[in-house]
Amino acid sequence: MYDIIIIGGGAAGMSAAIYAMRGGMKTLVLEKLSCGGQASRTHEVDNYPGFYENPTGPELMDAFLAHAKKFGAEIKPEAVREIIDPDGDIKTVKTRKGEYKTRAIILATGANPKKLGVPGEAELTGSGVSYCATCDGAFFSGKDVVVIGGGNTAIEDALYLSSFCAHVFVMNRSKRFRASKTLMDKARAKENIVIYTDMIAESFEGEFKLDRIMAKNVETGERGFINASGVIVAIGIEPDNKIAKMCGVELCERGFVKTDMYLASSVKGIYAAGDCRVSPLRQVVTAAADGAIAATSAINYLM
Amino acid sequence: MYDIIIIGGGAAGMSAAIYAMRGGMKTLVLEKLSCGGQASRTHEVDNYPGFYENPTGPELMDAFLAHAKKFGAEIKPEAVREIIDPDGDIKTVKTRKGEYKTRAIILATGANPKKLGVPGEAELTGSGVSYCATCDGAFFSGKDVVVIGGGNTAIEDALYLSSFCAHVFVMNRSKRFRASKTLMDKARAKENIVIYTDMIAESFEGEFKLDRIMAKNVETGERGFINASGVIVAIGIEPDNKIAKMCGVELCERGFVKTDMYLASSVKGIYAAGDCRVSPLRQVVTAAADGAIAATSAINYLM
Repeated sequence: MYDIIIIGGGAAGMSAAIYAMRGGMKTLVLEKLSCGGQASRTHEVDNYPGFYENPTGPELMDAFLAHAKKFGAEIKPEAVREIIDPDGDIKTVKTRKGEYKTRAIILATGANPKKLGVPGEAELTGSGVSYCATCDGAFFSGKDVVVIGGGNTAIEDALYLSSFCAHVFVMNRSKRFRASKTLMDKARAKENIVIYTDMIAESFEGEFKLDRIMAKNVETGERGFINASGVIVAIGIEPDNKIAKMCGVELCERGFVKTDMYLASSVKGIYAAGDCRVSPLRQVVTAAADGAIAATSAINYLM
Repeated sequence: MYDIIIIGGGAAGMSAAIYAMRGGMKTLVLEKLSCGGQASRTHEVDNYPGFYENPTGPELMDAFLAHAKKFGAEIKPEAVREIIDPDGDIKTVKTRKGEYKTRAIILATGANPKKLGVPGEAELTGSGVSYCATCDGAFFSGKDVVVIGGGNTAIEDALYLSSFCAHVFVMNRSKRFRASKTLMDKARAKENIVIYTDMIAESFEGEFKLDRIMAKNVETGERGFINASGVIVAIGIEPDNKIAKMCGVELCERGFVKTDMYLASSVKGIYAAGDCRVSPLRQVVTAAADGAIAATSAINYLM
């Protein structure tokens, strides 16, 4: 019988494990892949406070893992198949390999940015192709960048980048933007933001790093290259909420877990931390803080 | 003219500076003492995720400072005297040395635990005397500890410690506890929690580290020693809200700054991060996350 089972071994899950173990809880972390989450698929993380020597994502996440292991956290590489009695005092988490009883669950299953699925995208991810302006924008300081998307995040990203990039080219596949009028007005007022409508990216090109994007006007069929050092693909982020749904916790309309300020979900004894929850910002440091809060709240619940 | 002035150079302020600078904002940090905040007055921080080799508080905060400086943050050792036009588009921050104009302010002024003011307390702080069970409890694993206080935090601390400490002695100066009945019932049900009422600590004793506490029963006048490896003084925490008050931001009844999920205060262009705000948990990692969120929100506001 465990006190706390943490589902997901990214920044949120590892931090929750550190806090749960220090709090004397019998804790199990279940991670279907290798630990580290989204950050471990990032080339460089230069904004996790204190790690000022530009660690790679895997280096930073190895430090998180070492930290959790130092306090004796048990980690199993197993995918969750089923949750029995999610709202009971004793909950059962089933994987293909076993069945684990626990009194509390922390959902730290993360989220993934939507991909365009165009040639060059996967190969150049981390070498010019990014899904997070706050994370990677600073690497393109003084250079030309492209933002793909037409929602609030895309336009906020363009505004963010416009303060320190030479030019920002926004590409939206239609004439209609989902972003608010206020944001659009601000973007249109910036001299170094150029907005292209009816435009899609057909491929990302460059050797070792992004050099240019093959763009196509979907109305005219015309094609042309946009030279850029970076592209932010901002077409949405999808939470991994399969297990949240099994638990019956309340989700927002976009599928993220709703929590209160203590990170309790709508189901007793189930907490959510990191990218899978409704959150104002998705960074390694915010995921780590979430893990600390969720674990502390779970401990208080279990007392 | 600055884009963002951050008031306070602890974990929250340094993290806010990192995020503001990476976002291309002209940023000034004002810190009245030396940078580092509460954490820099802590002997050992073993729960900031990723720093698994037990850094001292000053070591960890030096890394935060190096990180902020790497991105070129300007830091001035000046105390804020006055804020002019806090709700204006341009706000003026006055110190004894100068007057700085800015478009946004992040309050990261921190908080301080209340002290008992008894002999030995200051000398043994960090060597057995602590003000935070979540931070330091794990150092007393398997040992006897004392919790001083009678509010929710004190009783939550006692419950937290009871999972991994040998015995927890709660000392409250009166018969009446401010803690909720639910918490008190839980504490009374724990075999290894002993509750003393009408009891005050007169001194903390020990050479180099805490050995025992001189306790006095205020009803009978009787005195006696309680042997303990650790004591958690949980008699309250006081926000440093002098500047928040100058800004006219809304405070909770305990004096902490109220914010929304983006860490915006009730006054336009003023944000709060870290221990000075209403918060579910006060740790280095939560302060760091707050700094990131407040800076990102301020950047969005300034676009």
